[in-house]
Amino acid sequence: MNSPITAFAPATVANVGCGFDIFGLAINEPGDKVVAQISEAPGVRIQKITGDNGKLPTESEKNTASFSVMKMLESLQKTDIGIDLIIHKDMPLGSGLGSSAASSAAALVAVNELLGKPLTKHELLPFAMESEALACGSPHADNVAPSLLGGFVLIRSYDPLDVIQIQTPQELVVVVVHPDIEIMTADSRKVMKKKVSLSDAVMQSGNAAALIAGLLKDDYELVGRSLRDVMAEPARSMLIPGYDSARQSAMEAGALGFSISGSGPSVFALCRGEESGEKIKIAIMDAFKKNVGFDSEGYVSTINQEGAHVIN
Amino acid sequence: MNSPITAFAPATVANVGCGFDIFGLAINEPGDKVVAQISEAPGVRIQKITGDNGKLPTESEKNTASFSVMKMLESLQKTDIGIDLIIHKDMPLGSGLGSSAASSAAALVAVNELLGKPLTKHELLPFAMESEALACGSPHADNVAPSLLGGFVLIRSYDPLDVIQIQTPQELVVVVVHPDIEIMTADSRKVMKKKVSLSDAVMQSGNAAALIAGLLKDDYELVGRSLRDVMAEPARSMLIPGYDSARQSAMEAGALGFSISGSGPSVFALCRGEESGEKIKIAIMDAFKKNVGFDSEGYVSTINQEGAHVIN
Repeated sequence: MNSPITAFAPATVANVGCGFDIFGLAINEPGDKVVAQISEAPGVRIQKITGDNGKLPTESEKNTASFSVMKMLESLQKTDIGIDLIIHKDMPLGSGLGSSAASSAAALVAVNELLGKPLTKHELLPFAMESEALACGSPHADNVAPSLLGGFVLIRSYDPLDVIQIQTPQELVVVVVHPDIEIMTADSRKVMKKKVSLSDAVMQSGNAAALIAGLLKDDYELVGRSLRDVMAEPARSMLIPGYDSARQSAMEAGALGFSISGSGPSVFALCRGEESGEKIKIAIMDAFKKNVGFDSEGYVSTINQEGAHVIN
Repeated sequence: MNSPITAFAPATVANVGCGFDIFGLAINEPGDKVVAQISEAPGVRIQKITGDNGKLPTESEKNTASFSVMKMLESLQKTDIGIDLIIHKDMPLGSGLGSSAASSAAALVAVNELLGKPLTKHELLPFAMESEALACGSPHADNVAPSLLGGFVLIRSYDPLDVIQIQTPQELVVVVVHPDIEIMTADSRKVMKKKVSLSDAVMQSGNAAALIAGLLKDDYELVGRSLRDVMAEPARSMLIPGYDSARQSAMEAGALGFSISGSGPSVFALCRGEESGEKIKIAIMDAFKKNVGFDSEGYVSTINQEGAHVIN
C-alpha cells in the first residue's frame, strides 16, 4: 500500500474589501492539514476529523474535503480507487477565513500527489469550487483559488473560469483578527441585496480596479484607500458587534485599510511591514475586548505565495 | 494686450468597455482646438465656433468651453478678467468621442497658459467636470480626465476625486469608428437601468479589475477578454444599428476586444500594432456600410500620452 500523504492549505481572506466574489488572498497561518491514503475498498471515506469539536459532517457526500476528492476522482474516471482522509482543522469554523476551502484544497493536493500528480493546481480548482457550493450554496472561488494557488487572486469570470494571479508589494502585510463568534456563510449571503444601485456598482468597480492598480504599482496608499466596499460591508458589518470601533482602532494604529474577511466575523487590515502589523493586531483585539467583551485570535502575515502544498 | 494662445485637446474613449464612468483613454486624433485671448471687457465670451454647423450654443453659460473657463476664473477669484474664445470643432458632435470634454479641456489649458499657468492639469479637472454636468447631466470625468491628462485614466472615486493614470502596453492600438448617426449623451444615459443585479455588478468589477491587470502586466489577451460590459453595452448597443455585425467583423479581423465608445454611436476596438488596427478599421467601416448603409469615419491611434497641450 502507498504511504500516506499530508498536505497543508492556508486560510484565506476573500473579497478583500472591494472585491466581492472576485478577490481573495492567502495568508501563512492558520490553515488545515489533510492526510490522504489509498485504501482497498473503493470510495472516499473520512476516517477522522480533529479540531472541529465534532461539528463537521463525516459523511463523504457532505464534507467539503471528501466531496471535492470525489468530484476529482469522477473527472479522472478513477471512482474505483479507495481513499481514506484524516482532516486536521487548525482554524476556526465559520470564521470568514475560508475554513471549508482550506480543507478541500489540502485534500485535493494530497490526493493529487497520491495519484502521481495527474493534475495541476489550476486544474484542481473546479473540484474545490463544487465543494464550496456544498458548503455555502454558491460555487465561489475567492477562497479556494488563493488557498490552492497562493498569492492574491482575481477571478475575472466564473463562466468560463478565468483566474488571474496578481503580484503584491513586498512589504504588504495582512492582519487578521477572528472574534469569538460564529457566522455561517450561507446566512451571511442572505443579508446581501440582490440588486445594487448603478452608482454603488460604479463605485465598487472603481475601487476594485484601483486595488489592482495599487498592488501592481506597489502603491501602498492606493491599496489602502481602495479597500472600500459598498456592496457587502454595509450589511455584513451589522452582524459583527464592535466592527466600527475595531476599524477605527486599526486605522488609528496605522492600517492602510480595513474590512471584513470573507463573510466574517473575522476582520482584516492591510498594512506595510510586520512591525506595524503587530501593533494593528493588538489594537483590533483590544477594541473587540474593550467595546463588546469578545476574546479573539489574531494573525499577522505576509501574503502566502505558495498556497496548498505537500508537507511530508 | 497678450497674444492669443491655442491649445489642442484630444478625443477620448470613455468607459472602455467594462469601466462605466470609471475608465477613459485619449487617442491622437481627432480633437478640438481652442484659441484664447485676453480682452478688455470682463467676462468670458465665445467669439466664434467653427466645424459645428451652428449646432453649439455660443452663450457663455451654455457652452462647455466657456462655462469651464468661467468656473476656473471664479475659483481663481479672477472674474474681472476678460477672455475671448474661438472654438474649432474638429470632431463630430454627439459621437461618443468626448466632443464637449475636448472643447473644455482645450479651453482650460489655453486660458491657464494665458494666465501664466497658475494651475496644474489635475487642478483644471474639476472645472471641466462641471461643464460635463452642463453637457450631459452628470459631472463624469471619464472623458475630461483623459482629454486633459492623456493616457489611460481610472477614476477610483468622485468624492473625493481620485484619478489614477494607468500605464498601457506599448503596442496597444485603439481603432475608433464613428458611424454617421447622432446620439445625445443625456438620452443615452436614460436607457441605463438605475439598479443592476448583484451578479452583473460582480461581473463588471471582475472585468474592470482584470482590464487594469492586463494593462499593467502588458497582457494583451487579458486586455481583450476583459472588455466585456454587462452594464451599459446591452442597452446602448440597441441604439446603434449594425452594432453586432460591426463587432463580429472587428473580432474576425483580429481585434482583442470591441465595445461602445462612451455613450456611442462610435465604437472602438483594441488591438496590437497599427497594421492590425488599419485592417480592423476597414472591417468595421465595411460592416456598417454593408449591413446598415452607414458611412463612417475611422481612426487608428496609439494611446495619446500627452493630453491637452498648447500648440503655439
